[in-house]
Amino acid sequence: MRVNGTPYRAIWLTEDNWTVEIIDQTKLPHEFKIVQLKSLQDAAIAIKDMWVRGAPLIGATAAYGVALAMREDPSDANIYKMYDYLFATRPTAVNLQWALDDMKALLIQIPPDQREVEAYKRAAEICDEDVEMCSNIGIHGAKLIQDVFEKKKGSPVNILTHCNAGWLATVDWGTAIAPIYKAHDAGIDVHIWVDETRPRNQGASLTAWELGKHGILHTVIVDNAGGHLMQNGEVDMVITGTDRTTYTGDVCNKIGTYLKALAAKDNDIPFYVALPSNTIDWKVEDGVKEIPIERRDVSEVIKMTGKSASGDISEIQITPDGSNAANYAFDVTPRRLVTGLITERGVSDANSNGLKKLFPEFS
Amino acid sequence: MRVNGTPYRAIWLTEDNWTVEIIDQTKLPHEFKIVQLKSLQDAAIAIKDMWVRGAPLIGATAAYGVALAMREDPSDANIYKMYDYLFATRPTAVNLQWALDDMKALLIQIPPDQREVEAYKRAAEICDEDVEMCSNIGIHGAKLIQDVFEKKKGSPVNILTHCNAGWLATVDWGTAIAPIYKAHDAGIDVHIWVDETRPRNQGASLTAWELGKHGILHTVIVDNAGGHLMQNGEVDMVITGTDRTTYTGDVCNKIGTYLKALAAKDNDIPFYVALPSNTIDWKVEDGVKEIPIERRDVSEVIKMTGKSASGDISEIQITPDGSNAANYAFDVTPRRLVTGLITERGVSDANSNGLKKLFPEFS
Repeated sequence: MRVNGTPYRAIWLTEDNWTVEIIDQTKLPHEFKIVQLKSLQDAAIAIKDMWVRGAPLIGATAAYGVALAMREDPSDANIYKMYDYLFATRPTAVNLQWALDDMKALLIQIPPDQREVEAYKRAAEICDEDVEMCSNIGIHGAKLIQDVFEKKKGSPVNILTHCNAGWLATVDWGTAIAPIYKAHDAGIDVHIWVDETRPRNQGASLTAWELGKHGILHTVIVDNAGGHLMQNGEVDMVITGTDRTTYTGDVCNKIGTYLKALAAKDNDIPFYVALPSNTIDWKVEDGVKEIPIERRDVSEVIKMTGKSASGDISEIQITPDGSNAANYAFDVTPRRLVTGLITERGVSDANSNGLKKLFPEFS
Repeated sequence: MRVNGTPYRAIWLTEDNWTVEIIDQTKLPHEFKIVQLKSLQDAAIAIKDMWVRGAPLIGATAAYGVALAMREDPSDANIYKMYDYLFATRPTAVNLQWALDDMKALLIQIPPDQREVEAYKRAAEICDEDVEMCSNIGIHGAKLIQDVFEKKKGSPVNILTHCNAGWLATVDWGTAIAPIYKAHDAGIDVHIWVDETRPRNQGASLTAWELGKHGILHTVIVDNAGGHLMQNGEVDMVITGTDRTTYTGDVCNKIGTYLKALAAKDNDIPFYVALPSNTIDWKVEDGVKEIPIERRDVSEVIKMTGKSASGDISEIQITPDGSNAANYAFDVTPRRLVTGLITERGVSDANSNGLKKLFPEFS
């Protein structure tokens, strides 16, 4: 999507056809810093230190990391070595493992002297496939926004979103935000309520930045405010992303999603979740009971990072010395609160019948 | 309550019997700073700059401000002048006006040379009445905690609270936290989940500080986390305060309270609201429709204050330059989500029958 008028992806190849560039997302929203990845090690650091984040973008970066590794040493030994090295950067990221498995299976069966070329080719394909998938999510979701726009007779559609499921989390378009970009680019007036999304603030920092740079009207609110807005007719629909979706329609997404879904239900507001089908877990039936919730470092709760008066990025402590904190990264929204799942093949009811109709190959 | 072993109130008279002392709450939780109020102007600044906050404490500080004014000039003219001067500090605070009206009515009818003494006497009474009221809220609420403690056969009772309705918001004990202090002091094991409470962070800063200083086990969580905890059996009950309660049982409290009430309902967890009866509005029937919600400065959303690495208190910006923000201070929790109202006269159902039975003088 656009940054100051120029179209960007979240990862791309430079003109030399081997150097990879990414945006250091840890500097956002205060600095737009492009970083070059010229080695396996560079790619590993980018993933580990969260310069890139979001499942699809982690996968794409790992794929290019493999290509960089093959450029350095295309031996069998290095295929195994780089796999373990990249896998260790964020071992719980499903897309990381998927991309590494995909690349390894391709490369191990071809001669070493072809591996660099084929790795770059496959990494580019992985990126393009992700863009295509997100674009289709956007097209299907934009129809839902258009329907509301027509019902409101052209008044702006107010959409609430949580966390960052925009183009910065994918290669382009995003998941939850893809429908918003498609609608906006088609001339539909939208206004986005952006949940701050504590503790990591990806809403206030990444989503607000993305929307602002693309020229989309938006308002940042604290995570506490959505219920009040819904009670008072200020929200027409909610669209969030998801990290993992059960085949029955339960949605595991950034902590706090469940609270917004409850408020949407209480106020008869449609609550949509956008997802590429590769985030559907075809084995898990009950999300609340079966999906383990990651607990992250409590420093994310007790501290906050931002721009100081002098313009530097600095960190402050907001809790008393000695107070305990807990940091749950995700929660599960039960299917009964989800109006529909926006996938690359269309919008499904949040249940196994709906999903299996769209994805019969899994039923 | 106790700070490092020493009992404190949130406002008190020093040994000279005329200087008033308060805690500068804007410095908490990073510094425990006691400030002397020696003039009407000092008291006005303390209220206006929010060194003191919380409806009961604002009322008590205003009452002592009147006493300080009478010490300076006990004339009729000064009664009117100081009334306007103090009223302008936080004109929407109901307890401020109540305290000023009460003091003015008393003083205007007695000779000027008795006004200083009577003003100090009445200010002390207002404080003692508030302590008595909060203590009774604590006694009634502690019974609810004890019941859970017995059902859990002595395992700690996990209580979630939102914002700060502790002793720092009143003269002593607090409202929502009073039952917790009474239970703890009676030997009941409690563990408190403290909602951070963005945007002003009064949970993470004030409630966590209070509980820590009194020696009560607590864990700070982001506002997004409560739903997940309730879904997973980690919360036995919720107790919050309220800024304004309709006689029908709707509760207007710090933004985000409604979301927690929804989650409590969805998980069959009791949701109690603690209040002194003077916060009941006997005229308003429908809280959602009738109570106007204050919108505060957006700087509270786009910025955060805390302790920097060097130990200074500093402010950082967390949103992108140019992004809009909105700052709603309160929301309304409909009575259907409220299990009970803990008042100084006992626990009432959240409806007009319940409240009128406890307070027949208003029916």
